[in-house]
Amino acid sequence: MEKEIISNELFKSVVKVRPSKSQKGDYGKVLLIGGSEQFGGAIIMATEACVSAGAGLVMTATHSVNLSSLHARVPEAMFCDWRDRNLAKMIAQVDVIVCGPGLGQSAFAQDIMQLVSQEVTDKQTVVYDASALNWISNKRLLLARNARQVIFTPHQVEWQRMSSLYPDFQTDTANQDALNNYDPGAILVLKSENTRVYQAGKVYQNQIGNPGMATGGMGDTLAGVIGAFVAQFGPSVETVSAAIYLHSLVGDAIYQDKYVVRPTELISRLAEFMKH
Amino acid sequence: MEKEIISNELFKSVVKVRPSKSQKGDYGKVLLIGGSEQFGGAIIMATEACVSAGAGLVMTATHSVNLSSLHARVPEAMFCDWRDRNLAKMIAQVDVIVCGPGLGQSAFAQDIMQLVSQEVTDKQTVVYDASALNWISNKRLLLARNARQVIFTPHQVEWQRMSSLYPDFQTDTANQDALNNYDPGAILVLKSENTRVYQAGKVYQNQIGNPGMATGGMGDTLAGVIGAFVAQFGPSVETVSAAIYLHSLVGDAIYQDKYVVRPTELISRLAEFMKH
Amino acid sequence: MEKEIISNELFKSVVKVRPSKSQKGDYGKVLLIGGSEQFGGAIIMATEACVSAGAGLVMTATHSVNLSSLHARVPEAMFCDWRDRNLAKMIAQVDVIVCGPGLGQSAFAQDIMQLVSQEVTDKQTVVYDASALNWISNKRLLLARNARQVIFTPHQVEWQRMSSLYPDFQTDTANQDALNNYDPGAILVLKSENTRVYQAGKVYQNQIGNPGMATGGMGDTLAGVIGAFVAQFGPSVETVSAAIYLHSLVGDAIYQDKYVVRPTELISRLAEFMKH
Amino acid sequence: MEKEIISNELFKSVVKVRPSKSQKGDYGKVLLIGGSEQFGGAIIMATEACVSAGAGLVMTATHSVNLSSLHARVPEAMFCDWRDRNLAKMIAQVDVIVCGPGLGQSAFAQDIMQLVSQEVTDKQTVVYDASALNWISNKRLLLARNARQVIFTPHQVEWQRMSSLYPDFQTDTANQDALNNYDPGAILVLKSENTRVYQAGKVYQNQIGNPGMATGGMGDTLAGVIGAFVAQFGPSVETVSAAIYLHSLVGDAIYQDKYVVRPTELISRLAEFMKH
Repeated sequence: MEKEIISNELFKSVVKVRPSKSQKGDYGKVLLIGGSEQFGGAIIMATEACVSAGAGLVMTATHSVNLSSLHARVPEAMFCDWRDRNLAKMIAQVDVIVCGPGLGQSAFAQDIMQLVSQEVTDKQTVVYDASALNWISNKRLLLARNARQVIFTPHQVEWQRMSSLYPDFQTDTANQDALNNYDPGAILVLKSENTRVYQAGKVYQNQIGNPGMATGGMGDTLAGVIGAFVAQFGPSVETVSAAIYLHSLVGDAIYQDKYVVRPTELISRLAEFMKH
Repeated sequence: MEKEIISNELFKSVVKVRPSKSQKGDYGKVLLIGGSEQFGGAIIMATEACVSAGAGLVMTATHSVNLSSLHARVPEAMFCDWRDRNLAKMIAQVDVIVCGPGLGQSAFAQDIMQLVSQEVTDKQTVVYDASALNWISNKRLLLARNARQVIFTPHQVEWQRMSSLYPDFQTDTANQDALNNYDPGAILVLKSENTRVYQAGKVYQNQIGNPGMATGGMGDTLAGVIGAFVAQFGPSVETVSAAIYLHSLVGDAIYQDKYVVRPTELISRLAEFMKH
Repeated sequence: MEKEIISNELFKSVVKVRPSKSQKGDYGKVLLIGGSEQFGGAIIMATEACVSAGAGLVMTATHSVNLSSLHARVPEAMFCDWRDRNLAKMIAQVDVIVCGPGLGQSAFAQDIMQLVSQEVTDKQTVVYDASALNWISNKRLLLARNARQVIFTPHQVEWQRMSSLYPDFQTDTANQDALNNYDPGAILVLKSENTRVYQAGKVYQNQIGNPGMATGGMGDTLAGVIGAFVAQFGPSVETVSAAIYLHSLVGDAIYQDKYVVRPTELISRLAEFMKH
Repeated sequence: MEKEIISNELFKSVVKVRPSKSQKGDYGKVLLIGGSEQFGGAIIMATEACVSAGAGLVMTATHSVNLSSLHARVPEAMFCDWRDRNLAKMIAQVDVIVCGPGLGQSAFAQDIMQLVSQEVTDKQTVVYDASALNWISNKRLLLARNARQVIFTPHQVEWQRMSSLYPDFQTDTANQDALNNYDPGAILVLKSENTRVYQAGKVYQNQIGNPGMATGGMGDTLAGVIGAFVAQFGPSVETVSAAIYLHSLVGDAIYQDKYVVRPTELISRLAEFMKH
């Protein structure tokens, strides 16, 4: 399989200048689902990244204990108690669902996975991240079969669980084959120090980023950026690759001055680096 | 109808230098009402914008779940649980009421609309925004009839609901006619990429602003700025136009460096651009 | 009565360079009491100002609903639920009590006033601000009689309630006479656009400050700064005058660039202006 | 005993450039335990310092009332209600435990101390700070006997309680002897204006820092930095000394411009000074 490097040109071709006549509806609606009592920070970071990276409208379905901290950081996002029976209606309203950051492994989390898999339609993209990937690796039926586009964002160990491939065996061919078993049209973001993106035989590889980004919350942040990009620029392997590139680009800028890159600082600078 | 462009001169003529002998009472009291469990962020942003744009005293009546995040962001604002029976007393104390950001469509929200319509006197201005506009388009009796000045801030779809005019038919004459049906003295802020302001035959048009501002929360922010401006500079079509101008001016400054304009960042820079 | 202008020299003579051998105990302990359900922001701002202006250790007794927002903004402060029966013990541990920001007019607030008046000893200074002043003007018995030093910080209307002097009759002699009726050794901070400080015949007058500071929360912020200054530099009319000077100095610096001075921004720059 | 000054060279030898191939697991997992209802700010500052100083993964076990403010400030950290029966499992998952900031003196705090002492294994380092030190000075059995490395971080009064040595008698030899009574391999960080670090006859002394750092929360912040450093660079007296050096280095930089050094500001600049 041929591998393409994610270039600045690719990034620029995706992140287009906004037309002057436009409104928030043109930039998509994203629903982020996650954040148990223990992992609320994950969904907060994903949400803030999604807002900062330009999604038109952002909603967050999470455990009610996370409401205050969510709004203290991101008043731009709407809130939905994930136990609320209106969650299905909320899913119906959006273009993109980011499912997983801080979702956890509870029985209730499984109910959420189930609901998403049932409700998602062929107009919608689902980004599965973090715990959601573990659920899917255990129970394939929890995958949204009707989605227009599915995107998986595992790191190597999560992908091992999904693919049964040990990291050393995660070659491009083996990865694409394993991905086909889930959904031949799915996009796979295999996170590592050289994150690769797969779809139907295409492979993009990220060559920027740095070890200061090896810190808790970076993945949640990326999931939010991908959600925002798909909402604005449509669900394609190039869109997703551009999101990864942005995430690393901002990380590299911060790493020039700081030993470690805090996700919250990366988030605060996303919009600046989208304005090339 | 003659249309006037909202100019920097107009803005400067409204935002006067403060007299050195003055106290917070001289800059008005504003009560913002909104923020259901789901939409708390909207009232938080409106409140923060109102404080940052210089209102003398700011109070926020909202659902109690929003208290912590409100004060984490805006300790300058006083809080009132919107279920508190003292809400009527709070209304009586203020010069301006901003009603609607995140208010929602619940039966209780209707009770709030009812209370506002009953309690508002001819010394007070009411800014109706967001959900409040939907309530009024459904039930005209929910409009505060005794107010000194009513200001509506719909975007085109909300105005369509209020006026039964499809966006293409929202001409100046038709808009003013539809506005007259509600209240011939009302001010209409019809939000779009070229926001227009109407009152009794006068039309002002905004020519600045940018598509990076097409993001959730921008309208709530504007409502807060309008509230602050009316409190400080009196309820006139020029005051409201100046508020819109400021909102766009700050948005344009941020858009120079950022792909998307976060409402919270816009809010943090309002006071700087009022100091011309 | 002779009036002295609060000068930069006075300020510098109070805010001394810290000795290199010192620890937080040397900079005093302050307990701030206030913040009902409705007015939590007031005590949060007073607390943050107190921390930022250098108090060694800061504790805040407030309604439990304010805990989350207090710590979201000021994790440096310790928290005490003001209904906790240990409040008397907390009072005993500190050098300075700032009582009043957002305290409110409830029956429970009166109990707090009562407790403070009983528990304060002749080693302690009490700063009475905002609602606390109203309580005292209604019931003189609520004043802490045993305090080493009492400081009142009314604005003109609050002082009118305390002194029965209409603003036009608030001359230096009349003010000192009215103050003597409460406590001949007390310090009075009479806030206006030219704030004056009285103690036993001495009068200091502030000549800096600006109308951008005429906004809700400025008084709460000043109360916190005074608390911090007394804790560090001892309870004197000069210490209090220096606190007022700092508050205005920072306000003036911000007002150069901003139309209105947000208390939270003023707070964030206190420590910088103490480093002359 | 020979004393070595903690030098910039030592600091640089500890804080190595990260290898480009690495992931968050390589930078250690830290669990911070503390934060009663009254002292939640302490554990929040320790947590934020730990994240900012580069720990790979950070978890915080604290009273549930502190959840909202923790996540409002540090969404990067995972949360565990310290009453949760899974606390023992959380302990098992980490490399470093920081126990004590804001822990308090309740009976429940003792249960926590007990649990930590039972569960810690010989692969783990425990940093005991603040209230935890008081518990240990009262009940030696509360010390984790099986830990790979124990680190104590008392200030002089806490060390007096632990060692029965009055500050004037806290000589290097006496300190090392008293430390041996607890654990001959333990590291002692004796905080003062010239903080010293002891281990098995080695003594390091800090010569930077300033009196602006004499403020509540500085110790909690240092505990978090030490936790992060041990997680990344291994548990040695040099690692701990480097953490102390960083803490003072940032404090000195801030003190150049500010009269007092707020812990939260110090925290926000840690990563910048690790990038030498």
